Amino acid sequence: MTIVAFQGIRGANSEVAARKFFGPAVATKPRETFEEVFDAVEGGRTTFGIIPIENSLAGSIHQNYDLLLSHRLHIVGENLLRIEHALVALPGIPLSRIRFVRSHPQALAQCTDFFRTHRRLKPVSYFDTAGAAQSLRAESTSDTAAIANAYAARLYGLKILRRNVENRENNTTRFLVISRSPSRGRSNARMKTSIVFAPARNQVGILFRILGVFALRDIDLVKIESRPDPRSPFRYLFYVDLAGDPSRPNVARALEHLQEMTKRFRLLGVYPRSV
Amino acid sequence: MTIVAFQGIRGANSEVAARKFFGPAVATKPRETFEEVFDAVEGGRTTFGIIPIENSLAGSIHQNYDLLLSHRLHIVGENLLRIEHALVALPGIPLSRIRFVRSHPQALAQCTDFFRTHRRLKPVSYFDTAGAAQSLRAESTSDTAAIANAYAARLYGLKILRRNVENRENNTTRFLVISRSPSRGRSNARMKTSIVFAPARNQVGILFRILGVFALRDIDLVKIESRPDPRSPFRYLFYVDLAGDPSRPNVARALEHLQEMTKRFRLLGVYPRSV
Repeated sequence: MTIVAFQGIRGANSEVAARKFFGPAVATKPRETFEEVFDAVEGGRTTFGIIPIENSLAGSIHQNYDLLLSHRLHIVGENLLRIEHALVALPGIPLSRIRFVRSHPQALAQCTDFFRTHRRLKPVSYFDTAGAAQSLRAESTSDTAAIANAYAARLYGLKILRRNVENRENNTTRFLVISRSPSRGRSNARMKTSIVFAPARNQVGILFRILGVFALRDIDLVKIESRPDPRSPFRYLFYVDLAGDPSRPNVARALEHLQEMTKRFRLLGVYPRSV
Repeated sequence: MTIVAFQGIRGANSEVAARKFFGPAVATKPRETFEEVFDAVEGGRTTFGIIPIENSLAGSIHQNYDLLLSHRLHIVGENLLRIEHALVALPGIPLSRIRFVRSHPQALAQCTDFFRTHRRLKPVSYFDTAGAAQSLRAESTSDTAAIANAYAARLYGLKILRRNVENRENNTTRFLVISRSPSRGRSNARMKTSIVFAPARNQVGILFRILGVFALRDIDLVKIESRPDPRSPFRYLFYVDLAGDPSRPNVARALEHLQEMTKRFRLLGVYPRSV
């Protein structure tokens, strides 16, 4: 049976993403931290893990880049989930009685327009959107709502007072599916390859030369992300997603060429592309 | 008189950075949020603002990149501060009586080795390191310590139980000094220029071509940082720090050339370089 670990409690957006990727019949395992998700997959206790890596408004989830580096797992898939925030409360409580709104600080930050037009409502930071939903049920509060997804509202028996309280239409999170084994390539899918490396020397133009490895072979870079190298301050590791996979000669040769001018090169995964 | 706005309460690392940059006689103004720091400078209520932009362990402070974009201010200086965390408590309380340790989640995350060897101590998230120090004084707690800097301990009359409880030796934050007016160039200092832009088109190799503008003129890129473009999902803005300043012909020409292949180009500041 396919078991997928996710960070958060039941109803988290990561669980919604797992159900979207594997189908609603998938078995999911909640974990407290991202690190525990990686550990569950690495230790073979779950087949897969699903982790958010990037949000269209907030940017990358850096901790998960760092965990990709510190664990020996493979990215085997990706998944886009549009994040929809609903204002939810216990049944029978009208919006006019609500004074406090609990949610994760990032979710609250994505609903500032709603709070600006509802000045009576005071946002309260909570560790988790689904946790905020669950807490309403646990505490039977009558003056507090939560911002969470519709799936969490259903799980915890809450009523949706207002749908789509988020600021913008396009709030999308990209999730990665991780596994102990690399994905079996699907030759007819549009594939993506994720790598990480550090430039071998800190010389003028080194990044330009590195990007040339791909540009001169007509390989499109989908994303480039720099993170501090934990081994040397103010030096950077680069995480690159490129279009194509190493079964194509130009990609295979580019990856070989890249290793001539980088150190700590690692192939993080080859998987069907959805963005 | 020079007045410098910083985010946090008195004793925050940003205030320590302001005192280091301008000297201990500087007048400092605490503000609740980074946005209020930008607003204070933009509205002329303070001469300068000081904001953290990057930490050697945790990476960039993305919100401040976004605020640089949404405000029309100039970077006029930068400053490196080594972050030292001390375990502090009210005088007369020995370490053996401490059960809880309050601090900002990032500071707690930087002290995991200390918590691993002191399993009895439970970390508790607090909005601010200096706030955690202040709260001990305000609440007269006898079972709680804080992780904060030595300046905050002195301000709030606390005793240092243990110095340097941080994991690594090299925990450094880079701060930017912002102002309404650009800095007057110091021709004999090593200068740095900060810019932001979006690639004009999403074509294969566009970033390679953009970096070529600098590499082919022997201009060193000190830092390159991508952030989601708030106007178009999964497109990126690039923040680049380059060595040199536009008084040098090669830098001036590179910036002109760059504008041929980018949009939303802006010069964020030219200032003496300290990293």
